[in-house]
Amino acid sequence: MSVMKEIKDYFTEIMRLNYVQSLLGWDQEVNMMGYKTVEGRSEQSALLSQLIHQRLVSDKASKLIKEAEKRKDLNDIDAAMLREAKRAYDQEVKLPEELVVEITKTAALSQQVWQKARQNKDFKSFIPLLEKTVELQKEKAEKLGTFPDLYSTLIDLYEPSATYKWISNIFNPIKPKLTDFIKKLNTSSNKPDDSILRKKYDVDKQFELSVEIIKKLNFDLQAGRQDRSTHPFTSSLSSMDTRITTRTKEDFLNECIFGTIHECGHALYEMGIKKELHDTILGTGTSLGIHESQSRTLENFVGRSKEFWTYWYPTFQKYFPEILKNYPLEEFHRSINCVQPSFIRVNADEVTYGLHVILRFEIEKDLIDGKIQISELPEVWNSKFEEFFGIVPPDDAEGVLQDIHWGMGMIGYFPTYFLGTLFGAQIYNKALEERPNLPEEYKRGEFSGIVNYLRENVHQHGSVYRAGDLIKRVTGEDLNPDYFMKYIENKFYPIYGL
Amino acid sequence: MSVMKEIKDYFTEIMRLNYVQSLLGWDQEVNMMGYKTVEGRSEQSALLSQLIHQRLVSDKASKLIKEAEKRKDLNDIDAAMLREAKRAYDQEVKLPEELVVEITKTAALSQQVWQKARQNKDFKSFIPLLEKTVELQKEKAEKLGTFPDLYSTLIDLYEPSATYKWISNIFNPIKPKLTDFIKKLNTSSNKPDDSILRKKYDVDKQFELSVEIIKKLNFDLQAGRQDRSTHPFTSSLSSMDTRITTRTKEDFLNECIFGTIHECGHALYEMGIKKELHDTILGTGTSLGIHESQSRTLENFVGRSKEFWTYWYPTFQKYFPEILKNYPLEEFHRSINCVQPSFIRVNADEVTYGLHVILRFEIEKDLIDGKIQISELPEVWNSKFEEFFGIVPPDDAEGVLQDIHWGMGMIGYFPTYFLGTLFGAQIYNKALEERPNLPEEYKRGEFSGIVNYLRENVHQHGSVYRAGDLIKRVTGEDLNPDYFMKYIENKFYPIYGL
Repeated sequence: MSVMKEIKDYFTEIMRLNYVQSLLGWDQEVNMMGYKTVEGRSEQSALLSQLIHQRLVSDKASKLIKEAEKRKDLNDIDAAMLREAKRAYDQEVKLPEELVVEITKTAALSQQVWQKARQNKDFKSFIPLLEKTVELQKEKAEKLGTFPDLYSTLIDLYEPSATYKWISNIFNPIKPKLTDFIKKLNTSSNKPDDSILRKKYDVDKQFELSVEIIKKLNFDLQAGRQDRSTHPFTSSLSSMDTRITTRTKEDFLNECIFGTIHECGHALYEMGIKKELHDTILGTGTSLGIHESQSRTLENFVGRSKEFWTYWYPTFQKYFPEILKNYPLEEFHRSINCVQPSFIRVNADEVTYGLHVILRFEIEKDLIDGKIQISELPEVWNSKFEEFFGIVPPDDAEGVLQDIHWGMGMIGYFPTYFLGTLFGAQIYNKALEERPNLPEEYKRGEFSGIVNYLRENVHQHGSVYRAGDLIKRVTGEDLNPDYFMKYIENKFYPIYGL
Repeated sequence: MSVMKEIKDYFTEIMRLNYVQSLLGWDQEVNMMGYKTVEGRSEQSALLSQLIHQRLVSDKASKLIKEAEKRKDLNDIDAAMLREAKRAYDQEVKLPEELVVEITKTAALSQQVWQKARQNKDFKSFIPLLEKTVELQKEKAEKLGTFPDLYSTLIDLYEPSATYKWISNIFNPIKPKLTDFIKKLNTSSNKPDDSILRKKYDVDKQFELSVEIIKKLNFDLQAGRQDRSTHPFTSSLSSMDTRITTRTKEDFLNECIFGTIHECGHALYEMGIKKELHDTILGTGTSLGIHESQSRTLENFVGRSKEFWTYWYPTFQKYFPEILKNYPLEEFHRSINCVQPSFIRVNADEVTYGLHVILRFEIEKDLIDGKIQISELPEVWNSKFEEFFGIVPPDDAEGVLQDIHWGMGMIGYFPTYFLGTLFGAQIYNKALEERPNLPEEYKRGEFSGIVNYLRENVHQHGSVYRAGDLIKRVTGEDLNPDYFMKYIENKFYPIYGL
């Protein structure tokens, strides 16, 4: 057996254990309600982390990688496979087994405590576990030492090669531009309002409709599911089993509809990876930024377009005739493109969204640098929120407790959300250049065109190309935030009559 | 660390992997609908089996067991722990890793094929996988060689120490007694009929009601769940996470109600195991026969008693007023105790149930002895069914395809179902001797009395005592089928006015 075949098989086993680990997490978020069940699950999850760790750092892994590195004739895929195997090995070998186990155990417990704290709007109850979690992440970053600063080391776990500085150089100039743009929209005398989305929409009907939408968007229900959970997410439990979740809110239609389209975008990425890469270490999205580019393309560039709603609005009217029968499409489209400060990131419009991310990015940096204590987080959050948006969350559930990430130890994850929007805008711009008829297709309920474009250019490659290489391959240039700014100008000035 | 502590911890890790394996199975039965997902899941499941196998047969396991065997001062629990560890090691070490993996992979695939075959009433499509499954089981039995005959070796996997001969000696005399008893009931001029159970009962209401019932029966929803699946089952995903499933049929109330109470009986066993044994190799029911004794006690001795329904019937009348409002309790109780031939084992009344099991027991024996070919199964089933019950299933879904067991490779499992009834009758007889007021308590909706009796005498001990020791400990004698015969005589003669 060739060394590359051996590496492939060895890491496929590790991927399979990762999938099993993902099922433990999926099940905990989707199914497990009883508080007594948490400890057992946390032990199981920790045990799996330990097994995965042992396999990653084994002599066999090391030997295989060294041997493969001598080979000069590797094709693109084999070279990428070796690159990712080496990256996984190099990272993991620096982490003591106890730390890996402790992090997993803490995350599983923390997830449940966060859920309760959020429910009860009680940040204090979450402090001890969050403190432990952040300390563990700092310790992890120290051990890894990928970059001189801890925060960059953590970011690199989600967006390989990205650093605090690189992201700052992108976010810093765009922050005032966004703020100015929002101010400009505010001068409009014809602002859309979203009160129509805040009527009472039967939650089961919302869910049913969301399944109709994902089917039409090429989500393969033979290779995945949609369920409900506290925090919507996408999870791959094998290369042929990608599951998304959504949540419904009776008095805010966006929550379920755009949440679903968003997760569907993630799922299509995983579902579109070519067979050759299935269950291998390359058989997943290449970075969280690129992943998010796919979800936000579907959610916003496609899902909030006039053409998309030209097709879907009659169906919505059929589902909710009492509310929508006499409400014109034009106005509905304006209402889903209402730009305004809001508390919850995942429900934010596409213009203010970036600021939600930048806010977290700045807080994370200070948190990791020790400039903020955990106990100060609500205060810091609220005052920064006022600075960014001019409003203060009514409670911590709508503020610092809204997201699961920090509790799960995922620090450095947030910036990838806005990077994703920027990657996405650039790729979608290219897609429209190459296939200008796409929006016309949406009007007829045809979404294979855009999905196939993304599949061909992004999805199929899994992790073969790093984010930086991929964006250049697809669009011919490095990440360039101007595409996003141009996109929002072209879209929102007309909507706001400016 | 003492050697017993080491054994405990070592096998706790194995138990945790088993729990994870159970989650893979639970998820597949409850959640996974897409046919494309099956292969990936089957690979994951096989990988886990392999890891579990490797740990069971490791040098470390062998060394620990040998060392512990030198100790003369073991208490009851430690001695039992060593006994079970040794049993697990001795069995597993005889099985080649490839065989273990192959069996798991085949079972995961087979489960899905069975579901489809059953749905389509198409036995033929199931033949190849079933043939493979049975061959693998025969191979497994040959390697194990626990008893000279293969079938006893397989039975022993589910009911330790039970053999074909021992079970035959119990079943053979009871078979004609049951047949005679049924004939006797048939002479009644006042037979109950169950048409009231076959009206149209809203399935969601049935499910809701079933949750009310299990709550009242002390099922702890903080340490478990109830879901729906094709075939009802109980699965422990840790010592604090026991899940049951049920199925609903609009036009047959029994399916959901008695199925739920049955699985609840299994769950209470797992939930009642004392903390000291949690997640250890002793932290599960001691044999499938004893397990079934707990489920059938709840389902039948408690759940089909007049006193139980004195409490529950008004609630049922509230749930289904159109059907039950004017139907008297007396008649309803008679209808759920209608003894008659039927096709589906899990829905059978408590008298004919034993014959369903004996039929499978006889077929399994011939199957393993090679006296029947897989392709002949439907024919053999149907002709035997006519011989036992005087009726022939209309199709294979109501015949040979109704149960999942053979497809999953669980041959030797069926006899434990009727053994369970017999164990249960004997234990319940003792419970009533010691606490004659129990039935009066049911009338008031109090079920803690019976549950605590079972917890104290059976549940808490997990696998500390083998079935044979336990029955003697609780009742003072060996398994004695007379208690069951006496029970049905005392119960059904009055119902049938004989």
